[in-house]
Amino acid sequence: MTEGLSAAVAAGDAVRGTTSPNPPVGCALVGPAGDLIATGATSPAGGPHAEVNALRAAGERARGATAVVTLEPCNHTGRTGPCSHALAEAGVARVVYCTADPFAPAAGGADYLRSRGVAVDFRPARVEALQPWLRSVRHGRPSVTWKFAATLDGFTAAADGTSQWITGEAARELVHADRAARDAIVIGTGTALADDPSLTARYPDGSLRPRQPRRVVVGARAVGAGNLARLGFEQYATPQEALAALWDAGARDVLLEGGAGLAGSFLELDLVDAVQAYVAPALLGAGRGVLNRALTDTITGARRFRTTDVRRAGDDVRIEMERDVYGTR
Amino acid sequence: MTEGLSAAVAAGDAVRGTTSPNPPVGCALVGPAGDLIATGATSPAGGPHAEVNALRAAGERARGATAVVTLEPCNHTGRTGPCSHALAEAGVARVVYCTADPFAPAAGGADYLRSRGVAVDFRPARVEALQPWLRSVRHGRPSVTWKFAATLDGFTAAADGTSQWITGEAARELVHADRAARDAIVIGTGTALADDPSLTARYPDGSLRPRQPRRVVVGARAVGAGNLARLGFEQYATPQEALAALWDAGARDVLLEGGAGLAGSFLELDLVDAVQAYVAPALLGAGRGVLNRALTDTITGARRFRTTDVRRAGDDVRIEMERDVYGTR
Ligand SMILES: NC(=O)c1ccc[n+]([C@@H]2O[C@H](COP(=O)([O-])OP(=O)(O)OC[C@H]3O[C@@H](n4cnc5c(N)ncnc54)[C@H](OP(=O)(O)O)[C@@H]3O)[C@@H](O)[C@H]2O)c1
Ligand SMILES: NC(=O)c1ccc[n+]([C@@H]2O[C@H](COP(=O)([O-])OP(=O)(O)OC[C@H]3O[C@@H](n4cnc5c(N)ncnc54)[C@H](OP(=O)(O)O)[C@@H]3O)[C@@H](O)[C@H]2O)c1
Repeated sequence: MTEGLSAAVAAGDAVRGTTSPNPPVGCALVGPAGDLIATGATSPAGGPHAEVNALRAAGERARGATAVVTLEPCNHTGRTGPCSHALAEAGVARVVYCTADPFAPAAGGADYLRSRGVAVDFRPARVEALQPWLRSVRHGRPSVTWKFAATLDGFTAAADGTSQWITGEAARELVHADRAARDAIVIGTGTALADDPSLTARYPDGSLRPRQPRRVVVGARAVGAGNLARLGFEQYATPQEALAALWDAGARDVLLEGGAGLAGSFLELDLVDAVQAYVAPALLGAGRGVLNRALTDTITGARRFRTTDVRRAGDDVRIEMERDVYGTR
Repeated sequence: MTEGLSAAVAAGDAVRGTTSPNPPVGCALVGPAGDLIATGATSPAGGPHAEVNALRAAGERARGATAVVTLEPCNHTGRTGPCSHALAEAGVARVVYCTADPFAPAAGGADYLRSRGVAVDFRPARVEALQPWLRSVRHGRPSVTWKFAATLDGFTAAADGTSQWITGEAARELVHADRAARDAIVIGTGTALADDPSLTARYPDGSLRPRQPRRVVVGARAVGAGNLARLGFEQYATPQEALAALWDAGARDVLLEGGAGLAGSFLELDLVDAVQAYVAPALLGAGRGVLNRALTDTITGARRFRTTDVRRAGDDVRIEMERDVYGTR
């Protein structure tokens, strides 16, 4: 079962950034002897869900198998038929899932399967790939992860504005892989004008990764000619407008890449769900801070997060946090 | 051999903070079948070294055994006899060590052992417990590790000065365990006057750990009555005077616990060898910085370190770094 679970999680991870507005779900079909029969993951919107892809790959071998799914199988007919029906019809003997479906119209898959005589096990586990989508459903707007890179003493640039390179190559590679898994990257006009960024997801050799997130700028100032104009981007007047438009366009998982002004606004508006901090083992003593304003005057007002992941990237450290405990449901 | 190595490393770790001016060395005696015969570690100054303690514990079983030692066996007659002689006389067949002795009067142990027909293997490995002592020998002053606790955006207190509790209980427990392994804790008069700290190494229930580091204050202002006066402390006018006096008193591994003013001075004087940062998953946006002055105006002047360890402590993250690559020698 553990093997089936890691195969299902890996299948979901592999399609992050390609499934919105649907969640990146993974499914593994396991035989009675514990053998892995097939895996499947959510296809791009309009295509089959993870369970149906796994069932197709398995064919007749699905009969009597156990399906391990990262999210409760859906029970409603959207652009595709209900997965709960497909699993029952394929003769699957047992369904194990890690996350209950919080999306009301789709929920009820577990109950339907039981009514058809399929054994159903809810085994709560935190599936990272689903967290942004779960938060987006809960809030009715895209999940926002604020990413920044800073020295250990909290500076994103020296006093004279120079900042290349605070973090090293291993951290930059993580950043680009992460961009490819998001629906959109959002920056402020300040960063757009100061840095002329491309906001593309690249390989270390500079070539483009197959999947590129939408490029989004927030603020009133005209961005003009430059990399963004060349590559194409969207601009919105406020954070709220940007998130509403992105939601309507199907985006569920958005990466806020600064700068200090726009990040401060998102935090003040309580629109930051997660933080991804790249911390470099360097000290400046003074310089440009991570944020451009106080969030509080006193320690009890500090914005607190829960640490979800810590990993080294060369000499740098990536710390991932989220705002609330969503946990497993 | 690997087992012998971890037993030797563990034996050395266990006596950190009790051996200065000698290094906290560990030794394991392993039988021909790979069986662990005995371990030993450096006794407090004046007492036997690790090898001798291990040989005593092993008795006759040392004959034909392999001795795994974290540091090259010493070859000189200080307060105790040379370990190289003791190992040869006990009939040890083979000596494996991880770190060459950088202390000139004591070096030469490996050559002596070979001349007595003992097989000697230098297997370079980084032994954490020895790093402060190695740095102290290299610099001719105690090794200085600067410890601080800050929010992710680099603040040690909010704008109004409040700071309790930036980090959580698990981090505080690490701090107290670490204090017990140091020779001295150094703070500035600013921290002494503002916080009235005890600078003791305590257990979570508040009781004192068996070993307490020296308490040291740097600066001209009188500290007066309070916890430090009650518990006893030393005061010096400058960082250099403090380190010279501590060196003379036998201290080799010193923890600098702030504040921002004294830490800035130590960094400017290039007296910080290692950094131990406790990072809390919290944001303030503004407040009191980790340092009270710029170390540079431009990014190429940033003080850079090499990350040596990263670990979670509850929701906090402890990042350990060192200034130079001392590596294995
Ligand atoms: N180290 C890092 O991780 C990192 C990441 C990104 C950027 N940076 C650096 O940060 C610097 C730019 O920072 P910055 O603060 O000047 O610029 P910024 O945050 O990118 O953009 C600020 C602009 O965003 C818009 N904005 C912010 N809050 C808003 C709100 N509530 N409603 C509407 N618009 C809002 C405003 O645009 P208008 O004024 O046009 O209306 C504002 O001027 C650059 O030097 C860049 O290199 C560092
Ligand atoms: N979060 C943390 O990790 C942490 C840790 C420690 C402290 N803190 C906080 O930091 C605050 C205190 O910081 P602070 O900067 O005011 O005080 P501080 O750094 O503890 O002490 C500053 C004093 O140290 C002496 N000093 C510094 N450099 C010197 C030099 N080169 N030569 C001689 N003396 C030197 C001076 O003493 P004289 O003026 O007396 O000569 C100076 O006033 C407190 O609020 C405390 O709570 C936070």
